[in-house]
Amino acid sequence: MSGYREAGVDLDAADAAVRRIGPAVTATWHGDVVGGFGGFAAGIKIPAGYRSPVLMMSTDGVGTKAELARRTDRLDGLGRDLVAMCVDDLAAAGARPIAMTDYLAVGRLDVDRVGRLVASIAAACGEAGVALLGGETAEHPGVMEPDAFDVAGAALGVVEEGAEIDGAAVVPGDVVVGIDSPNLRSNGFSLLRATALRHLALDDEFPGTGRPVAEVLLEPSVLYTPVVQDLLAAGEVHGLVHVTGGGLPGNLPRVLPEGTAVTVDTASWTPAPVFAALGDLTGAPRPELFRTFNMGIGFVVIVPAAAADTVVETVARHGREASVIGEVTAGDGGVTLA
Amino acid sequence: MSGYREAGVDLDAADAAVRRIGPAVTATWHGDVVGGFGGFAAGIKIPAGYRSPVLMMSTDGVGTKAELARRTDRLDGLGRDLVAMCVDDLAAAGARPIAMTDYLAVGRLDVDRVGRLVASIAAACGEAGVALLGGETAEHPGVMEPDAFDVAGAALGVVEEGAEIDGAAVVPGDVVVGIDSPNLRSNGFSLLRATALRHLALDDEFPGTGRPVAEVLLEPSVLYTPVVQDLLAAGEVHGLVHVTGGGLPGNLPRVLPEGTAVTVDTASWTPAPVFAALGDLTGAPRPELFRTFNMGIGFVVIVPAAAADTVVETVARHGREASVIGEVTAGDGGVTLA
Repeated sequence: MSGYREAGVDLDAADAAVRRIGPAVTATWHGDVVGGFGGFAAGIKIPAGYRSPVLMMSTDGVGTKAELARRTDRLDGLGRDLVAMCVDDLAAAGARPIAMTDYLAVGRLDVDRVGRLVASIAAACGEAGVALLGGETAEHPGVMEPDAFDVAGAALGVVEEGAEIDGAAVVPGDVVVGIDSPNLRSNGFSLLRATALRHLALDDEFPGTGRPVAEVLLEPSVLYTPVVQDLLAAGEVHGLVHVTGGGLPGNLPRVLPEGTAVTVDTASWTPAPVFAALGDLTGAPRPELFRTFNMGIGFVVIVPAAAADTVVETVARHGREASVIGEVTAGDGGVTLA
Repeated sequence: MSGYREAGVDLDAADAAVRRIGPAVTATWHGDVVGGFGGFAAGIKIPAGYRSPVLMMSTDGVGTKAELARRTDRLDGLGRDLVAMCVDDLAAAGARPIAMTDYLAVGRLDVDRVGRLVASIAAACGEAGVALLGGETAEHPGVMEPDAFDVAGAALGVVEEGAEIDGAAVVPGDVVVGIDSPNLRSNGFSLLRATALRHLALDDEFPGTGRPVAEVLLEPSVLYTPVVQDLLAAGEVHGLVHVTGGGLPGNLPRVLPEGTAVTVDTASWTPAPVFAALGDLTGAPRPELFRTFNMGIGFVVIVPAAAADTVVETVARHGREASVIGEVTAGDGGVTLA
């Protein structure tokens, strides 16, 4: 059966976990959801107004940010990280995310912890207007440490056929508008764990922030999906980039058609304080920093120059900052960080 | 961006992995797939013929079967296990699976191993008529052992509104038809690892089978989706049960409406040899065996008694065996194993 289920050795704990997470999950079921069949199973109808809907799926996890969350028992932000990683990928393709599932792998099923994780996922789904249709918690005794866990998910989105955004419309002269990310989202944690976190304690001050390391690093991701939906409705979007693993230089080329390139003026924005210290903390050279962290730009919108102001204003209405950070030129698909 | 992506520290290995798996992934893209935008990103249209389609999602993993596969480097069956776990859940809800994503968590990105895993997933997707729309390989250095990996996925299905199968039509007098599973599918491996596999070597003979332990235990799952689609097309299906974690007693109650119960005659089928030895090998009492393993019945179809023969014939056309293994009675939702 589709639906919410826990797998593992301790079936009583599994039943308790399902009961615990039920209300949070069903709270995300809105008018398009066809629920109530087979326990927690649910389906969803395509929202009204699509003539020739194309369905898209994305999948992602939160990486080793989960390990920091585990060590500090700060789980409340991880759900937002997971939902942002999954649904913002769909938004970057021009789609409207409508549903999600989650997958938790755990060493031992801890009902309270699973309950808090799923509650955080469900809350972020609610914020993104996405129904949490089902999930799986898989107990892996003897393979994972009892206390270890991994968090992943998959999302479903819909886009009108022909309205997919893939960068094909990007032309030289377009401007690159960056939307700020005040934190690392869910990328770069393995580098931090291999470097800075060998000598920084999680309750030390994170340099330049006045806040503890754990609090700074575990700050939950921005959900860009709502603002991107508004930008798509306004039209004129040529390209969209969700800045995840690979950073700006790794992700911008994904939307550049042949014969184009991008120059990014890295002095054109002031990243949040967390980014200023990353070079010293990790020892990584600047190009590696830009390929590992979002460096303060979590999402990119490529539009004709005349549309840039509208993008900035729309983003501001959602409480975020955007600015022109670069331009599209003729070229061979390269990204120049000036 | 949606699509196929690798995340982690070794970005060159990630690029190589994406190139390696590309052909296998795109081979699953059939006529309903809208591909070609943004590298590996793809969407899918709802197959023709649905008036009021309801979309369903499922998610699952292969559990600690992956650990056995890792130790013996027999990865080729795991993809079929994953696809079966995900899409057969959708089939059990009456849906037609149309697409999937996969999620691999690895300690260190081994391009060859990721390539073989994704190829096995893609091959099973092809067999199930499902498009592999995207995936994620997440490198978790320092959290997972370099050699460790976990395999999970999510599937998307479609069902005509009102044609969902949730057991609501099940009535006393219906018969329970079991479809054979010649192997463990992907359940019970944690119990085996905690018991039998402490004293059995993987190249020992698995008692009663004449075959090595690893070969018997890693036999890939049956994909029930194709036969279930045929059964759904023939009508008269009252309830469907995918026998996964919890076994027959844990999963049958999921489709029993109030006022009904089920009696299963466990002497009515002869399970494959692997099941005969499980009691001795694990030391688990019989009720625990039935709650942990499928015990030779991997999928259950509940139909009016008059339709049983048709179900058996349809299953036979797909090369599997089915037989009446029980009946629905008046009762309180219980499952009696007689």
